[in-house]
Amino acid sequence: MMQYLKDLGEYYVVEQILNLIKSSRASYLPPGDDAVALKLGNYFVVVNVDTLIARYCMLPGMTLYDLGWRVVTASASDLASKLAQPKIFLISISMPGTTPLEDVLDFTRGAIDASRYYGAELCGGDTNESSDIVVSAVGIGLTDIEPLPRSGLRPGDVVAVTGAFGYTGLVFKAYYSGVELDRLPRKFIEKTYRPRARVDIVPVLREIRSYLTASSDSSDGLVRTLYNLAEASGVSIVLDRLPISDEVSEVCAQFGFSPEEVVLYGGEEFELVLGIRPSSIDEVIRRFHSIGTELLVVGRATEGRGVVYLKSGSEVRKLPLSGWEYFRK
Amino acid sequence: MMQYLKDLGEYYVVEQILNLIKSSRASYLPPGDDAVALKLGNYFVVVNVDTLIARYCMLPGMTLYDLGWRVVTASASDLASKLAQPKIFLISISMPGTTPLEDVLDFTRGAIDASRYYGAELCGGDTNESSDIVVSAVGIGLTDIEPLPRSGLRPGDVVAVTGAFGYTGLVFKAYYSGVELDRLPRKFIEKTYRPRARVDIVPVLREIRSYLTASSDSSDGLVRTLYNLAEASGVSIVLDRLPISDEVSEVCAQFGFSPEEVVLYGGEEFELVLGIRPSSIDEVIRRFHSIGTELLVVGRATEGRGVVYLKSGSEVRKLPLSGWEYFRK
Repeated sequence: MMQYLKDLGEYYVVEQILNLIKSSRASYLPPGDDAVALKLGNYFVVVNVDTLIARYCMLPGMTLYDLGWRVVTASASDLASKLAQPKIFLISISMPGTTPLEDVLDFTRGAIDASRYYGAELCGGDTNESSDIVVSAVGIGLTDIEPLPRSGLRPGDVVAVTGAFGYTGLVFKAYYSGVELDRLPRKFIEKTYRPRARVDIVPVLREIRSYLTASSDSSDGLVRTLYNLAEASGVSIVLDRLPISDEVSEVCAQFGFSPEEVVLYGGEEFELVLGIRPSSIDEVIRRFHSIGTELLVVGRATEGRGVVYLKSGSEVRKLPLSGWEYFRK
Repeated sequence: MMQYLKDLGEYYVVEQILNLIKSSRASYLPPGDDAVALKLGNYFVVVNVDTLIARYCMLPGMTLYDLGWRVVTASASDLASKLAQPKIFLISISMPGTTPLEDVLDFTRGAIDASRYYGAELCGGDTNESSDIVVSAVGIGLTDIEPLPRSGLRPGDVVAVTGAFGYTGLVFKAYYSGVELDRLPRKFIEKTYRPRARVDIVPVLREIRSYLTASSDSSDGLVRTLYNLAEASGVSIVLDRLPISDEVSEVCAQFGFSPEEVVLYGGEEFELVLGIRPSSIDEVIRRFHSIGTELLVVGRATEGRGVVYLKSGSEVRKLPLSGWEYFRK
């Protein structure tokens, strides 16, 4: 029987594609990781591509400038999660002929400004005509230390995140629930419309590399990212704390949203999820604190086979692997 | 007045985008070149992205496997033109939910096989949902010698191509003229459906690097490529010979097609266009001959301002800059 993408969902499709390339060895990072890495002398060149479809990620009032910023941010976030400092970005722009020139230039300006914000430059790209607005960013970064894979989590490792989640999830939840977005605090809108990849913490990540075992960007959503880490590492993960801030809790209460839903299943947030050797956790927290970043410990890796659990009180339950997925509506 | 892409054409739009990034310095190659290059110790890491929209490049009987082969070939060709050996490819796949899984896997197989054919590996990518089939390949290559820019042509330099043109142009011309494609010689169809980037000549290009002044891939079509070289170098180019083979001439005659049109304006062919120091031309021809590649001298760079002329007999005329262009139908 013929199987179509819409009946299978994005992640099943990705798994089938990865099956075809799993024997590839040219990248230092395994297939399916956030980026590829090419070893060259004392350096690793880290490269990834991230594509966005405008109609799935544009909220009211979001401009093409914001889209340019976002697609470069998505790519920068993957590089940062592998400890690489971004150097060059490329963009590929596919848009309908009815697009105003000014929109294309605004998209480019957003990509230029984001590239600079991350200490890199936009240096080239490609232009095509399509029905949808489909944009890609290619990020090229460097690191002088082994990139951190998704696959390094070991049972007992501490799992931590580099900041609170739920801001973007809450904005999307509000939008889909018919809540006017200007009723939300300005900070939530800013974090959603102009997200920041954690390139700022790459220097400290490189300094504490030996305390870390795994890393991933979280743009797929927190639960999805934890599943990716658990599956790649051959462990399970038990969450015992949600990385939620008081302000996210308060706004959730105000609108009757589930904090668990917006924090765990939001997506399009750009904190990093790290695996940390248990003996080094205090030192790692201290080092992050010294640069003004509060590391939030959310759980532990355990013996297991790629499952993510949530522990609250004495209850432990498996977190369903749901959330946004292409080809499945 | 609001200007739309469809009224401006792809090349005007690209020029406006390049205006925004022309001051970027992170790439060893100037903005607008076939690829970017990052210098790292004794190496240059060369990266590019190429995007194809299926409905503009799929001929009858062309499969998703062919599309996967083609998009990797397009990227490999840009790397080869900069003297880089491809190492890793990434793909980004945006397709409708109604696409059969088997088509996506066939696309991936085509990309895998092309990557291997060029001595590299497909190591990762990205998947998204869109209305059109929009696919990108990111190529990552290495060279231990300065990449050849488009901008190095000097007046007096010989302009040559690495093979005859017109096979693909003729197939597209036949298709748009309503000629059944199975009336064309098998070789024409094969060169069109399963094109080969000239990665095979990268070793010799590196050996003769000091004799060469400029290089570009020709996938935009021969005249467009010559204009790109002339504009980037601040010279003009006078063609005095079409790079046409007897078989292309014969098939053109058979169907009443203009050889000039299919050779000069065809596009989607993957020979390289080279600038060569005049004193070295005999040696360069000899070196290509020794590896079984016939270098075809087609003209000369002259003092001028980015114009391409065709000289036949005593007549010299400016070649119009037309041919396939997105956003302009």
